[in-house]
Amino acid sequence: MNPDVAFPVWSGERAQRAAVVLDCCLAPAERPPALHEAMRYAVLGGGKRVRALMAYAAGELAGADPEVVDAAAAAVELIHAYSLVHDDLPCMDDDVLRRGRPTCHVAFGEAMALLAGDALQSLAFEVLAGGRLHDAPAQLALLAQAAGARGMAGGQALDLESTGTTLALSDLERMHQLKTGALIRAAIRLGAACGRPMSVDENAALDRCAAAMGLAFQVVDDILDVEGDARNLGKSAGKDAAQRKSTYVSLLGVSAARERVEQLRTQARAELARFGISARRLGEIADWLTTRSS
Amino acid sequence: MNPDVAFPVWSGERAQRAAVVLDCCLAPAERPPALHEAMRYAVLGGGKRVRALMAYAAGELAGADPEVVDAAAAAVELIHAYSLVHDDLPCMDDDVLRRGRPTCHVAFGEAMALLAGDALQSLAFEVLAGGRLHDAPAQLALLAQAAGARGMAGGQALDLESTGTTLALSDLERMHQLKTGALIRAAIRLGAACGRPMSVDENAALDRCAAAMGLAFQVVDDILDVEGDARNLGKSAGKDAAQRKSTYVSLLGVSAARERVEQLRTQARAELARFGISARRLGEIADWLTTRSS
Repeated sequence: MNPDVAFPVWSGERAQRAAVVLDCCLAPAERPPALHEAMRYAVLGGGKRVRALMAYAAGELAGADPEVVDAAAAAVELIHAYSLVHDDLPCMDDDVLRRGRPTCHVAFGEAMALLAGDALQSLAFEVLAGGRLHDAPAQLALLAQAAGARGMAGGQALDLESTGTTLALSDLERMHQLKTGALIRAAIRLGAACGRPMSVDENAALDRCAAAMGLAFQVVDDILDVEGDARNLGKSAGKDAAQRKSTYVSLLGVSAARERVEQLRTQARAELARFGISARRLGEIADWLTTRSS
Repeated sequence: MNPDVAFPVWSGERAQRAAVVLDCCLAPAERPPALHEAMRYAVLGGGKRVRALMAYAAGELAGADPEVVDAAAAAVELIHAYSLVHDDLPCMDDDVLRRGRPTCHVAFGEAMALLAGDALQSLAFEVLAGGRLHDAPAQLALLAQAAGARGMAGGQALDLESTGTTLALSDLERMHQLKTGALIRAAIRLGAACGRPMSVDENAALDRCAAAMGLAFQVVDDILDVEGDARNLGKSAGKDAAQRKSTYVSLLGVSAARERVEQLRTQARAELARFGISARRLGEIADWLTTRSS
């Protein structure tokens, strides 16, 4: 793609690309029809494809063509999609609306939604294993760690335990580093791993950039939960307060939360400086994530 | 180990070995305590370790030392353990007893059990990716397929859809080939893949043997559900009938189900003949599975 193309065009094209790849991953292939339908519903119902965009952008930074990044981009989206299905279940957040549609368990029943989530997690590893990986065991282990108890699932467990209590800011940060940060870092690392080898310093800078972007993404989520409306968000607004969850807004107030977002954006941008123009898309994603309204 | 050692000694030693490996996989490592405890509870609460034994036995058949098979053995047990946790949840089988203890969600709550199952699935891939694999992408894809919509999760979806209806025998067989058979086949294939390269014919024979053993295992399960008592089984007996599920016993009657088991055992044994003495442990597992009383 022409490097001069504007970010909305680039991100629209890449999000569309990710959707096509995911559609292929979920082509009918001897799967039981109801399960297959629930899986497609959970994955192909829109969404910003933030994690896929990050993988593609990190791939560009490392000089990888998008077709080499496809598997990594799809894998992180599949993990994200499964986590939303399980997170929406009655025993978790008990949410009925997601991206403006009934949640998976409302549409397909709890048991089928549970299985669809389980099968989507398996599919993520199947898809990544089928990609063009330089060092397959390392990259599969990276995704597994990001998804598991030391990553996303661990963050959700911390979230669960803390509901109804007031967290210290450092504990809230730790929780989000796992709950949303781990998979975002994996998206960027997996994307970058599709291209030229990185030095230890470069990997560390990318990782710090990813951590800042992940956290900024979450703080913005907290602000939008207070200020957004359900139509824009495609999900219920105000649910953090209703569930008595600690958020950046409840701990800092909206104004300080906004300052934190700007600080994190600057930090992410600073880490990218060493990569020059090759980091353009990642930087643009950082800007976009921190100024989004949905 | 001395090749003359009797099967109960061999299987006891290997089951113990698998438990130690699983204990190591679940050592505390920056995991949230409650989640970590639920994961350990689900995995380390005993069980026959059938799938791990199959992996070790298939490894022996291919000349692999047990330490090379450890990761594969642990990975299949982790997938199995996660599936039991999710299968026991109120929205699935709603079971309160497993291996003589409260099920995971009874002990830790539904949400934590859901997350523990999710994290155990991730851990399975992490552990397998950390093993000494000849062809990591192929073996990780194999496990992912066995666990996912074209394997175990797909079988559970078929089971779910068929509850309350009477299945044809061929549909029942198809369901079990996915629900329990896929992971058993994966255990044997992953174990064998740890050793010498197999010819296409050898792999096909092993696969037919695994399919017969997986089906035999399930038919015996159905018989025990009717004839066993909860104390021996460590789980509720008679639940198939209570849930109006089609079983081999409900379709064939106990006597014909027993004949089917013997037929499958003979079939599994016949497939192993070409491997000579190296297949001894797999053959013994086939005998054990078909004559077990719990």
